[in-house]
Order: sequence, then C-alpha cells, then structure tokens
Amino acid sequence: MISRYRFQAGTVGPWRIDRISAVRGAGLPAAARLAILPEPDSPPDGGAWALHGVISNLRYATGDEVAGLRAVQPGLGRAEARAAALIPIRKTQAWWDLPQDARRAIFEETSHHTRTGMEYLPQVARRLLHSRDLGEPFDFLTWFEFHPAHEAEFDALLVRMRATAEWDYVEGEVDIRLRLD
Amino acid sequence: MISRYRFQAGTVGPWRIDRISAVRGAGLPAAARLAILPEPDSPPDGGAWALHGVISNLRYATGDEVAGLRAVQPGLGRAEARAAALIPIRKTQAWWDLPQDARRAIFEETSHHTRTGMEYLPQVARRLLHSRDLGEPFDFLTWFEFHPAHEAEFDALLVRMRATAEWDYVEGEVDIRLRLD
Repeated sequence: MISRYRFQAGTVGPWRIDRISAVRGAGLPAAARLAILPEPDSPPDGGAWALHGVISNLRYATGDEVAGLRAVQPGLGRAEARAAALIPIRKTQAWWDLPQDARRAIFEETSHHTRTGMEYLPQVARRLLHSRDLGEPFDFLTWFEFHPAHEAEFDALLVRMRATAEWDYVEGEVDIRLRLD
Repeated sequence: MISRYRFQAGTVGPWRIDRISAVRGAGLPAAARLAILPEPDSPPDGGAWALHGVISNLRYATGDEVAGLRAVQPGLGRAEARAAALIPIRKTQAWWDLPQDARRAIFEETSHHTRTGMEYLPQVARRLLHSRDLGEPFDFLTWFEFHPAHEAEFDALLVRMRATAEWDYVEGEVDIRLRLD
C-alpha cells in the first residue's frame, strides 16, 4: 500500500545533476547522476548520498482542493518534461508542535500553498514524498518535472513560496536541478 | 526528533501478555511477554512478533482539543497503572484516499473520537504511535495504561469507539491486554 522510494545520487541513473544549492541549512555533497529506485527491491544504498520517502496520504488538502488539483495537474514522465528539480525540505520543531488547524491555516489560508502551486500547473508535474516519520534528515522530498523552457516560471514559483509565512518554519532546504540527457 | 519504538513480543519484557484478541482481520501469534524498546539502539527483532511505530505530529487535533487533552491526560508510567492494552489498527484504503477535511469530519465531528476519549481521562493514559509510513502491517499502535480496577471502563470506551462511523473504515484491529507482574 505504502510506496517507498530512494533518491540515489552517485554515478548512475537517468538524471544528470546540474546543480545542488543549499537554500537553508546544510547542503548535500556533489554528485553526477540521480536514480529513483523503488524500495525494498533495489540494491543497497551507495554512492554520494541517498534520501528516502514514501507516497502517503494527503495531510492538508480539502476535497475541493483535491478536485481542483486533479483537474489540471499533469502526470510524471511526460516526454517533453526533460528538466526536473528535487527539493528536500525540513521544517522546525515549532511547526511540528502546532496542532493540525494551526498548520493548515498557515499552509493554505495564510500562505496559499496549494492555490499558488495551481497557477503553475499544468506546466509543472509534481510528486510529494514524506520522510519525517522514517527518521530521515528531511521531512519531505518534492520532485518536479517540466519542459526546460518552463524553468524560469518554476523559479518564480519558488520565490513566491519562500516568501510565505509557511517558510518561516523551514529550517532546511536544498534545491537540486536535473536534466534527462 | 522522531522517536521510533518496537513492541517486541516473545519471552522477555516487563509486561505479561494475558490475551490477544483479533477484533477485525487477522490476529497476532500468542506470546508470553512484551518489551517496548527504543530503536535503533535495541537488539535485532526476534521472538514471536514485533510491531514498530513512531511518535509523530498530531494529525487531526485542533488547538482547543490539544489544550483540553493536556489538561486532563495523565502521563505513562504511573505506579498504579499496572494494566495495559496495545491496540494495533489498520484503516481501509478508502479512508486514506479521503482528503484531510473529510477524514477530520468523520474522526471528530461525526465520531467524536477525541471528545469521547476525554471522558475516560485521567483514568487512562495513552500514547499513539504511527506505523503506516513505515510500511508496517498496521497504521497505528495505541498503548493504554490504567489501574486494573478501571479495565471495565476502558472496555466500555472501546465499545463506544467501535460503534462510530470512523470504525466503518477500520479493517484490522487486534486487542492485546497486559499486566505488570
């Protein structure tokens, strides 16, 4: 039921790593290639670094928001989507100590996370993986795929997201850019 | 930050297992004793069975509910709390596919999970662990501690919980009763 994946950086994999930027907190070591592997059926961890996450249930989205997202969000693996970003994020303990209604209010009513993201669909396909309960160094891994011509728009989305009240609770963020070659 | 624990059933541990009842779905093998071990610093899994869970953030409780719970909920490890229950639960895929607002509405506005539970505090101490994202056979493990004289009240709480709309989404439940001896 729960699908667990490993983002394995090293010398193999279909994605070429062009850039690893530490946005907040520590970065990640340089590496040439990235492979996305289903667990537990893949070879053991190795290479430069590995991050793990699971596809889990929605944590904040309402029924209306889910319907809106499904109407416009493209799937992963489109032939033209040869650019990608992997953005691991860790939030503060203060965030996790908030009750559900307070987190929801900051996430959407104040910061418009879903509403803002939807403006950039269907150009950007996205998959959120959860890592926090696995004891990983980051709480989430978000994987984005887009046509290389849309990278500037994607950058603009990140600028808007990072200016929100939600990002006051982000203490770790790395921005990894990749290309299929 | 994330505390992971193993509930290890076998021949050792402070808790004597008196009874293992399959409430919905498959049960668990018989065993004599239970130990609760912090991970990853404990010896490897062994014995009759082991279930793993993490202490994670709240998923449904509002600020008001958290304040109410904190005001009356006792801590674990009270000297008089020599009876315990471990109740692993697995919910259906239909539950996990619901958006957050629909799950919250069933959990509290319809089924009054928190409100009902609060009626039985401070007699019953409780700790919820999350297992679903770990790929475990159950989604949650809840550990309850109480004075043996309060076991009938605890049973009454379970009867009420199992009659709620929330329990329409429970497909696996095991009720394990234990004593300190």
